[in-house]
Amino acid sequence: MEYDLVILGAGSGGYEAGLYAFRRGMKVAFVELSPESVGGNCLNRGCIPSKYMRHGAYLIDKFNKMENYGILPKGYEIDYKKLKEGRDNVVTTIRENFKKFAKQLNIPIYYGKGVLKDPNTVFVEGEEKTLKAKFILVATGSSPAGVGNLVPDGKNILDTDQIWALEELPRRVLIVGGGAVGVEFAYIFKKYGSEVILVEIKDRVLPSPDIPEDSGRYLGRKLREIGVDLRTKTSVESWEETPSGVKVKLTDGSEHEVDFILLGVGRRPNTRGIGLEEAGVELDERGFVKTNEYAQTSVPNVYACGDITSPLMLAHKSMYEGKIAVSHMLGERDWKKDERIIPKIIYSALEVASVGLTEEQAEDMDIEVSVGVASFVANPKAMDDGENEGFVRIVADDETGEILGCHIVGPHAGELIHQVVHMMKDRKTVEFASKSMYSHPSLSENIGIASSEVYYGPISWTKRR
Amino acid sequence: MEYDLVILGAGSGGYEAGLYAFRRGMKVAFVELSPESVGGNCLNRGCIPSKYMRHGAYLIDKFNKMENYGILPKGYEIDYKKLKEGRDNVVTTIRENFKKFAKQLNIPIYYGKGVLKDPNTVFVEGEEKTLKAKFILVATGSSPAGVGNLVPDGKNILDTDQIWALEELPRRVLIVGGGAVGVEFAYIFKKYGSEVILVEIKDRVLPSPDIPEDSGRYLGRKLREIGVDLRTKTSVESWEETPSGVKVKLTDGSEHEVDFILLGVGRRPNTRGIGLEEAGVELDERGFVKTNEYAQTSVPNVYACGDITSPLMLAHKSMYEGKIAVSHMLGERDWKKDERIIPKIIYSALEVASVGLTEEQAEDMDIEVSVGVASFVANPKAMDDGENEGFVRIVADDETGEILGCHIVGPHAGELIHQVVHMMKDRKTVEFASKSMYSHPSLSENIGIASSEVYYGPISWTKRR
Repeated sequence: MEYDLVILGAGSGGYEAGLYAFRRGMKVAFVELSPESVGGNCLNRGCIPSKYMRHGAYLIDKFNKMENYGILPKGYEIDYKKLKEGRDNVVTTIRENFKKFAKQLNIPIYYGKGVLKDPNTVFVEGEEKTLKAKFILVATGSSPAGVGNLVPDGKNILDTDQIWALEELPRRVLIVGGGAVGVEFAYIFKKYGSEVILVEIKDRVLPSPDIPEDSGRYLGRKLREIGVDLRTKTSVESWEETPSGVKVKLTDGSEHEVDFILLGVGRRPNTRGIGLEEAGVELDERGFVKTNEYAQTSVPNVYACGDITSPLMLAHKSMYEGKIAVSHMLGERDWKKDERIIPKIIYSALEVASVGLTEEQAEDMDIEVSVGVASFVANPKAMDDGENEGFVRIVADDETGEILGCHIVGPHAGELIHQVVHMMKDRKTVEFASKSMYSHPSLSENIGIASSEVYYGPISWTKRR
Repeated sequence: MEYDLVILGAGSGGYEAGLYAFRRGMKVAFVELSPESVGGNCLNRGCIPSKYMRHGAYLIDKFNKMENYGILPKGYEIDYKKLKEGRDNVVTTIRENFKKFAKQLNIPIYYGKGVLKDPNTVFVEGEEKTLKAKFILVATGSSPAGVGNLVPDGKNILDTDQIWALEELPRRVLIVGGGAVGVEFAYIFKKYGSEVILVEIKDRVLPSPDIPEDSGRYLGRKLREIGVDLRTKTSVESWEETPSGVKVKLTDGSEHEVDFILLGVGRRPNTRGIGLEEAGVELDERGFVKTNEYAQTSVPNVYACGDITSPLMLAHKSMYEGKIAVSHMLGERDWKKDERIIPKIIYSALEVASVGLTEEQAEDMDIEVSVGVASFVANPKAMDDGENEGFVRIVADDETGEILGCHIVGPHAGELIHQVVHMMKDRKTVEFASKSMYSHPSLSENIGIASSEVYYGPISWTKRR
């Protein structure tokens, strides 16, 4: 079989790139491990099922606020199996839609492990088929990995591949890692009724340099407020299996009995054993594929996108890179990766969204910045919705006024951030953002307010007469 | 007392303009009817209290979906007084914050009716004070008015000034007018347990030419689905008071007994009796103040913003015009009103948001357009949230690709629309929108998808091989 483009991995990035290539007139084929893994990690074991459970937790949160709206609930019961069923139903629906749509467009999916035989040949183990390709896009994603003394065993220590099989809610759970996965599951399990201990080795949750300290600390306080036992600067010293679960000793000296440990740290790119290096594709020392601004590898007709290109493992990064790769295959040179505008979004007790530089990063780069902050506490729409927590921070170049970053904690941060993503794509200034239009009442107003704080100076500090 | 700027009306537009003028270094004073009316219609009798009640209705909606998330509620009771209390509490908090902040900034609020004595003099009736002003901004808002045989009396027929005093939920209510107010209250009352009849004289709800027929019809179907008795092409033929309420005869021949009629149509600008015409400010035949692109009236140092400038009565239109007026007072000429980018947002059983041209309007203007549609039915984030209804429509110029309009029905339409507002401000194309970044999963993705449908052609129609 001969194709213009063979894509290894029909996950978020591969699938999106495939549809894009098809739409641009290319003859495309996918290679994917099995019919059950179409959609990749995000759909099957990541953002889609976790966002579903997170919405359930959000609904439970709403119970406490209903009285303010004249709604007096008579309590509720939790049925974890129904949650799982609803969640798996959404995942399956999307996965089947993926397959149906590919079929409708006549894009074949070959099932099995795809291995590069040379830069123009993919061998599909399982189906034992050889595919010839003008271009290859590698989009094989990543897998969870153990860290130190914490090796996932599916019983005492669960990773993010294994957590979905859980048939009942843990009574007590220890979550290792205060990154996106950790804070998300801490919120979910806590709201559904588990006792949750969350340990993070750094001094705060969301310790990524891309997320400002203020955002992480704000979320950390909120997690503590809802009863999560958050322990920063702490890790697991040792653990042992007991008849009823796991006994854990933490580095802060405390000991805990939990049902299991959920490991929210450590993923490795799936770049081994698929013929990459043999075909001449260069990897870096951590196993990531080296790519240029067009998502092209060291082999000109082989491209790579997503989790295998850098530790920033986000579905939309992969989708973006995949489409840029296809554009480059078609001879276009004007669409390049722009890492500045990739948003990082976390759904926990609050939504946390970041794009571009933090103040700390700007400082390290010797860029003078001004920062405008608009709190949601006094935002009328947030007050109406009973969700008036958090803030919008706009980081702007002092000299030019260009918006260099935006950091939002609060209601619908994950959607709001896109307004600034689009502005940053076009290198817009705080003047632009300040003079644009925001409906009233809306959460979006905070973007205009924060921008005005930079452009005109903070009004609350203004002293006159 | 001498001021750079005296503002008649401390509603959304006047207040925002006042803060902006202060921040730009002007000496400002507000004139407002009473301490209870600071914040104007939007805050006290409009968008803020209605959005609060609407969020309550949204929460009731969520009850039916909770089982899918493993949450089994044991029912609920409605306590309308608590809803009212919570709502009024938000309104009062915002109003008091307004006053506190003005005081903190040393911006005086004179209470009483402000009347122009000449283009530089405002007399405050009540406080009996004369204020001298270099500039005057008129921001006096609008009031509900009766229509035909429907004259609000506070008992049988309530207008949107009177509905807030309601102490208990109506058992049955007839709402006249399927515009923003009508569809909002229809949803609220229905969800809280009333029987609701909604009559609209046109052939659909939201019959404004700024909102595409598809949006109105989609919402209309949804309202019927939740049990609202929606009657289009219908109006009230006659009504009479009965011992238990009101008996209404509609033009479709049907008769109904209801507790009262809520009038959701008819507002007139507050431009009479405040010395405008005497001072030389020109009004149009409907009583609206004539203004130019800088919100300036026929008297050069007198400006006007908001409900008194056109029938498009939106708080953010007023805020926008008010700031542009101040900018013009300061000698700036680069910030002009751009009516294209004023979004219209309705919060009902679904959120409905529109900005810019509809297809119908483009056709009437002889502009060839392409339209891209992305349904929320298959949007993964919308599916996760159990809110996968509605769509994003992007209307783009066929020749240039410029985005001329966007029309959203569905989850958080009122926030999502801002992404397109900002793009339209800068006259961006569907190529720009298509190649920007959208996080996955997010509702925002539908903006990229709809834009790609235009830019690359609809993928579902592509035939090949």
